[in-house]
Amino acid sequence: MNETDFLSSLARRSGDPAISWLMKMTLDRPAMFSLAAGFTDSETLPVAEVGELMAELLRSGADARAALQYGSTAGDPELRKLTLDYVCAQDGLAPGAALTPDEVVITSGSQQLLYLVSEVLCDPGDIVLVEDPTYFVYLGICEALGIDATPVRMENDGIALDDLERTLQSLKDSGRIGRLKFAYLVTYFQNPTGRTTGFEKKREALAMLRSCEKAAGHPIFALEDAAYRDLRFDGPDTPSLKTLDTDGERVIYANTYTKPFATGIKVGYGVLPRLLARPVLRTKGNHDFGTANLNQRLVALALKNGVYARHLPVLRAGYRRRRDLMNAALQQHMPKFVSWQEVRGGLYYWAELPERADTSRGSPIFVNALDHGVLYVPGDLCFAETPARPKPRNCMRLSFGGTPSHQIEEGVRRLGGVLKNARL
Amino acid sequence: MNETDFLSSLARRSGDPAISWLMKMTLDRPAMFSLAAGFTDSETLPVAEVGELMAELLRSGADARAALQYGSTAGDPELRKLTLDYVCAQDGLAPGAALTPDEVVITSGSQQLLYLVSEVLCDPGDIVLVEDPTYFVYLGICEALGIDATPVRMENDGIALDDLERTLQSLKDSGRIGRLKFAYLVTYFQNPTGRTTGFEKKREALAMLRSCEKAAGHPIFALEDAAYRDLRFDGPDTPSLKTLDTDGERVIYANTYTKPFATGIKVGYGVLPRLLARPVLRTKGNHDFGTANLNQRLVALALKNGVYARHLPVLRAGYRRRRDLMNAALQQHMPKFVSWQEVRGGLYYWAELPERADTSRGSPIFVNALDHGVLYVPGDLCFAETPARPKPRNCMRLSFGGTPSHQIEEGVRRLGGVLKNARL
Repeated sequence: MNETDFLSSLARRSGDPAISWLMKMTLDRPAMFSLAAGFTDSETLPVAEVGELMAELLRSGADARAALQYGSTAGDPELRKLTLDYVCAQDGLAPGAALTPDEVVITSGSQQLLYLVSEVLCDPGDIVLVEDPTYFVYLGICEALGIDATPVRMENDGIALDDLERTLQSLKDSGRIGRLKFAYLVTYFQNPTGRTTGFEKKREALAMLRSCEKAAGHPIFALEDAAYRDLRFDGPDTPSLKTLDTDGERVIYANTYTKPFATGIKVGYGVLPRLLARPVLRTKGNHDFGTANLNQRLVALALKNGVYARHLPVLRAGYRRRRDLMNAALQQHMPKFVSWQEVRGGLYYWAELPERADTSRGSPIFVNALDHGVLYVPGDLCFAETPARPKPRNCMRLSFGGTPSHQIEEGVRRLGGVLKNARL
Repeated sequence: MNETDFLSSLARRSGDPAISWLMKMTLDRPAMFSLAAGFTDSETLPVAEVGELMAELLRSGADARAALQYGSTAGDPELRKLTLDYVCAQDGLAPGAALTPDEVVITSGSQQLLYLVSEVLCDPGDIVLVEDPTYFVYLGICEALGIDATPVRMENDGIALDDLERTLQSLKDSGRIGRLKFAYLVTYFQNPTGRTTGFEKKREALAMLRSCEKAAGHPIFALEDAAYRDLRFDGPDTPSLKTLDTDGERVIYANTYTKPFATGIKVGYGVLPRLLARPVLRTKGNHDFGTANLNQRLVALALKNGVYARHLPVLRAGYRRRRDLMNAALQQHMPKFVSWQEVRGGLYYWAELPERADTSRGSPIFVNALDHGVLYVPGDLCFAETPARPKPRNCMRLSFGGTPSHQIEEGVRRLGGVLKNARL
């Protein structure tokens, strides 16, 4: 009897998610200088604030008991309203017929929303367009659900529109456009590249997707993952895709309170097109019938009494400092053949080596880095498989978010040494 | 364009989960006397205890920051060890080669474990044996995943072994035994009937399942849902199915800290057969890559410093009192044609009316009860669809767990009046 042939197709398709071994490596080897983990900055976590909010929440009898009780599947009604207000304020939108708390669902991190949306829209063989490179955990979801993750080339300001057009045309030509369900776009300080999608590009991309609906015979959605939006420490904000979807019909907006506030509470959310609110809620009902209520009440209180807003600048200053540290370290210690772009938000630098370089998990560079006590995310994990190009192996995701600040310079220095020795 | 034909097969199979409308009805109509919700007893929720634990957790710098940071997909290592110790102590087992923290996964409530296990074992068309009646949210999972939930008759001490034998034989005879993946058994104070499965019956049932493996060509698991085990207020405990699976090969043990401690923190767990630990973790990695770390640290602290153990008798006394209130009210107010068994744990009474009665969602009894401000769970929700019998519509699940204690008597009195008027 084969040890796996009793598993479901989903389980047999699923590989070990890279995030699991990366997180485990980081947690198991506290002495290592990890430039890999997508952890948040422990130094600016709002410990005192969460302590005070918890004390307040758990002080009064009835409210405290409500916070420790079950809630509804969609989430705490007050948090859903506050979340909608927050999203609308950020985008200069007014709540209205197409944008009500009924379209807001609170999830266990935004990751759960990505899973739910993919699960309710896609059967095996369906197509989701992804950025090339993209968030590697999302590629794991696609693998498990049998989704054909089809990459679209990235430029400095988001996906390349000419490649999007070419990809859509080729799906039409091959008769596969009917399998296209949505485009997954990490539009703010993207994981892994740190790039932000320009607003005009959002408009064009959304229009191009909609123009294929007739050929597809069904709606084509855009899933905007804005998980890093609030971790912006330089420059202006960009309006979301949601602002281009005022009828609330096509854009799924995913964001989280986990990264920009208290990571260990794991509260994310989605603002959904009306067509999707009900299927997503049905499936969330089966997954867990509602995210931990105490955590939701905590976030609602933080939003309501201004703690969330007051903490943001503290946190942003912390990340900016770390970004500056890493930027300086990269300039000082990286050999000339390594290139990167400065980032204005998020947690990551994306370092590119010459094309002949190999940074993948078993490569001499990766192993040497580990031997020198440094872990990074091999860039190839972030690229979908496609016959259209070989998978690039010459990139690295370097995190400045979760690395203790005193380790950033030393980690980059050691990595720079390893790369110099690689004699590329 | 049809409004749903772009959805996945899973989404198109999924109906609105009954738990969602029941919870919503309860939350939206606070004036109603709800005997429906599976809420826990708000009066004995450990408000002060959680407040103190949070204060302790968030006091010291490094530990507080770790609690507010991401953890690993499988869960906090200390909580996994404490959980294994707790399960072993409860069952008189010794941790060993087959029972290590590596087989423990911490989930967002035990509900998430039910979903994950079903997802990694079952393709559409696969078979799971369920009790008749069973936990209705589990039937929703089966519906969504396309699982053929095949009911086995219930007796006062668990599934009827003769019906289990008959069912297994008929699967063999029809050549469908290869589709059978596991049996889902709610073995302690079952939701909805309040019944506990006897130990000898567990032994027999497990042996019968294993005896079919050769014909099936793969392992057949038993998923033991012990969510109500710690809510035992009368009588002795029963050893788990896990004690009959000392090699750790076939029994998936699911339990939770949500019901017997702090509901709003939503922390459950599974102790898995080795064969399943990896696939479950892979899929959990895709769902959310780990349950909220703060909540896990809270439970670990409660287990470690004895708060959990000290709170159990308080909570049990509260539930016993409520059970007594409901029992007295049923005896006083129910017409003679209603029958029920006294329960020794859990949150529910299961009331049976004459077979000709109809208590289903749109029935005159249900509507009249609502008109009198009383909500119950229609029993038909708890029965799987099967050609083998018409779906019984003559039962009601009555919760004494979440109903404010002063409403239990009045709720039962009103319901008794409605039933008397039904002239059955």
